[in-house]
Amino acid sequence: MRTIVALPLLALVAASPAKKPPTPNDIVAASPASAWKTIPADDLLVMDLASGGRVVIQLAPAFAPVHVANIKALARGGYWNGATVYRVQDNYVAQWGLNESDKLWPKGVTAKPPPEYTRPLKGLDVRPLGYADPYATGAGFVDGWPVAYSLKGGWADLTHCYGYVGVGRDLSPDTGTGGELYAVIGHAPRHLDRNIALVGRVVEGIERLSSLPRGTEALGFYKDKAQYLPIASVRVVSDMPANERPSYEVMDTASATFARYLRVRANRHDDFYIRPAGGVDLCNVQVPVRKKT
Amino acid sequence: MRTIVALPLLALVAASPAKKPPTPNDIVAASPASAWKTIPADDLLVMDLASGGRVVIQLAPAFAPVHVANIKALARGGYWNGATVYRVQDNYVAQWGLNESDKLWPKGVTAKPPPEYTRPLKGLDVRPLGYADPYATGAGFVDGWPVAYSLKGGWADLTHCYGYVGVGRDLSPDTGTGGELYAVIGHAPRHLDRNIALVGRVVEGIERLSSLPRGTEALGFYKDKAQYLPIASVRVVSDMPANERPSYEVMDTASATFARYLRVRANRHDDFYIRPAGGVDLCNVQVPVRKKT
Repeated sequence: MRTIVALPLLALVAASPAKKPPTPNDIVAASPASAWKTIPADDLLVMDLASGGRVVIQLAPAFAPVHVANIKALARGGYWNGATVYRVQDNYVAQWGLNESDKLWPKGVTAKPPPEYTRPLKGLDVRPLGYADPYATGAGFVDGWPVAYSLKGGWADLTHCYGYVGVGRDLSPDTGTGGELYAVIGHAPRHLDRNIALVGRVVEGIERLSSLPRGTEALGFYKDKAQYLPIASVRVVSDMPANERPSYEVMDTASATFARYLRVRANRHDDFYIRPAGGVDLCNVQVPVRKKT
Repeated sequence: MRTIVALPLLALVAASPAKKPPTPNDIVAASPASAWKTIPADDLLVMDLASGGRVVIQLAPAFAPVHVANIKALARGGYWNGATVYRVQDNYVAQWGLNESDKLWPKGVTAKPPPEYTRPLKGLDVRPLGYADPYATGAGFVDGWPVAYSLKGGWADLTHCYGYVGVGRDLSPDTGTGGELYAVIGHAPRHLDRNIALVGRVVEGIERLSSLPRGTEALGFYKDKAQYLPIASVRVVSDMPANERPSYEVMDTASATFARYLRVRANRHDDFYIRPAGGVDLCNVQVPVRKKT
């Protein structure tokens, strides 16, 4: 028996090709089902463009409950039927909504939401990034979301990473109602953190916004209304017919798989890399999201 | 005399409107001419798209001298006449060149350049960023360029910020010749730092690359050659007729104006901001560049 056991072991070692260091994508591809969490249909927003494309947004009610409730009420009230993308500023944001319309708010919209720019840190299961953050004393992940935080200040906030969605507003104390939204389409403008209500992130179709022509007016507003990109509809996925609902999963940032993914994002040893960075910035981690159906 | 001196001072305080904290743009607008340096015409590359748009690149010979010399030789030899943008990967890069052509290198091209991924730190006048960098122990600015550096390692490297241009390559030890170039069109992919030769940055027209349709093949390659964006010509500005040469200035990162600009980028006190960040990441500083003629 011993020889039988020993031989296959030796043979295995001898025959096995040198094991290649994994890429982040390899880790995602090999991840167990337990490393993923399904996004609730009630936290998904589908924006269908009149031209045919679709942008899907995961809402973050735990970070901005009143603004997110407003956004659902706006979608359910048909507020964005006939809305447009009217501002695209290079390396900054694409913004949509009604742009200074006097259309009435649908039922259930809070006209003056509180400044949901941070939430209490206490009780949150933060998985630290493990590397320095230029904008806060702490950075890490809470339930699938990148956050900056302060132990001393006792707060955590969602961060302005690529594809993240925030609420346009005028000067403070206005916090924006949620009718005008933007998505980040460039390098993370993290100076906006803690100054704006972030309400979620694009999980599909960000390229439909990031590849739009840039507006030539100040701040990237389109010069002519003819340039506005029409939005056909914005719906909450839980309101869609069951057989039409798209479904997505987010990697559980408390999982061992995510810890491994993060480690590899910071230390690439696969063939292309000569010098692993030995670090990664919060917004370059890119929490994996995948389409289920 | 004392009262005369005292009165105007008091009057000034009383009559002066509350001084508004400046935005970064305010500082650029009010900057003295001495805070700027003209980019030498020999360090500027003009890429004219067949569709009519123009992309202008400032080369960085101090960081990658052999690769930059190659790029000038390629431009002068007409290598990119008939080249295309053939890869656009969302939140990553737009890449152009001949894509696996067997066209011969023009005269003066070094076929196997050395790995110009870092340069010696010694002797460089580095102006520190002043905030943590997740990728290196030091970050700052050298002669108008953002750099990461290591005192212990004795090196400095140009960083993969938005709009920065690098040399496509295969697996190491290949360093790329310069015929295939890419520009960053998303969040800074700084894991590429010290693994690729960075050769400059786009100073005009990055939006012509960042707003292109994304390629649907792996890594953002266009599926059909019909999607390739044709390049009419790539020229070194010093080779252009004198009356056609565009000219640009970069803010002197050793100037007091830049120090002030950096301080305000990290601490926005203008009306929109409620909580200044108290920090800024290297790639979000965005060294000011402006067109002169």
